[in-house]
Amino acid sequence: MKKGILAVVSGFSGAGKGSLMRELLQRHGEQYALSISATTRPPREGEEHGREYFFVSKEEFERMIEEEALIEYACYVGNYYGTPKEYVLEQMEAGRDVILEIEIQGALKVKERFPDALLLFVTPPSAGELEKRLRGRGTETDEVILCRLKRAAEEAEFMEDYDYILVNDNLEVCASEMHALIQSQHLRTGSSQEWIARIREELCRF
Amino acid sequence: MKKGILAVVSGFSGAGKGSLMRELLQRHGEQYALSISATTRPPREGEEHGREYFFVSKEEFERMIEEEALIEYACYVGNYYGTPKEYVLEQMEAGRDVILEIEIQGALKVKERFPDALLLFVTPPSAGELEKRLRGRGTETDEVILCRLKRAAEEAEFMEDYDYILVNDNLEVCASEMHALIQSQHLRTGSSQEWIARIREELCRF
Repeated sequence: MKKGILAVVSGFSGAGKGSLMRELLQRHGEQYALSISATTRPPREGEEHGREYFFVSKEEFERMIEEEALIEYACYVGNYYGTPKEYVLEQMEAGRDVILEIEIQGALKVKERFPDALLLFVTPPSAGELEKRLRGRGTETDEVILCRLKRAAEEAEFMEDYDYILVNDNLEVCASEMHALIQSQHLRTGSSQEWIARIREELCRF
Repeated sequence: MKKGILAVVSGFSGAGKGSLMRELLQRHGEQYALSISATTRPPREGEEHGREYFFVSKEEFERMIEEEALIEYACYVGNYYGTPKEYVLEQMEAGRDVILEIEIQGALKVKERFPDALLLFVTPPSAGELEKRLRGRGTETDEVILCRLKRAAEEAEFMEDYDYILVNDNLEVCASEMHALIQSQHLRTGSSQEWIARIREELCRF
């Protein structure tokens, strides 16, 4: 059986990453596993342990760091966030494609450690559309929106470090593109090493 | 408009490259342009100038070499074979994905010159199946079949130089995979440079 692909998804706040993941999992739930991050930040209302995040104490998190149980971790605004390793490797071994939705800093660390990881950057079709989506939520002050847009400008500097850019204009189209893209990576020469070795051996018999 | 992708297709004789190209063009003829090689070998029965090949004289071919009108060329069994440049570049500029079905030697030259070219290697699912397909044609002697199988063994040494391996077990499935694969390459970061520059500029205004 072929090993799963490790796909890392980042993108501007407001790019629609969450909806995209949900759409993908709804359509092809048997093919994908969504990695759940561990964090030391307290759960917000409606968040569940093991669904949005694994909520752990600072001590637990630091033990995970020591035991090298995390693929990557980072500290934001005084809280740790990280990707537990075991689940990701298990799912990949089982042939499932694992999706990590993480920040750029973490994504680049994953790529260093797993050069075969597929780095996807999700963006709305324009800065105007990004602003519109952020305002459309209706839950944030002008100040927070401006802060997110400035952050997006900073994040845009890292787009070239990603392998592919997914423009999320239409959710369904974008989910189809993402699925086709990830599935086509199973055909990469690097993913076919065993297969190549086998046909070479067979051909040698002639 | 996005520039077309340059996809180079090679693979064992008997892998079904010809049928694959026909299937792809039949389904998505508007998206693809098949590059036609120039050759100095005389046309076989049923072959047409401008369909299978552009049949040219040795003098004409050598003038094309001198004028750098070929992307790559090589000499096989005393005849020149090459890929005229103009058509390929024109079609790519027009946004069409161009497919070159050429030998490994030529494919590697194309990759040197166009690092963004997508190198695809088509293979049957096993050496046994390859033998069966070659015998199934019923037109070749045992000696010729054995010669092709030995050549396949040699060619298999170059599989790692290709970006993707397409296992042609079922023609329709393989054509779908090939289409998804080529189309997903339009999302490569390298193909999105202008787009990235534009959104960066837009974001800077905030």
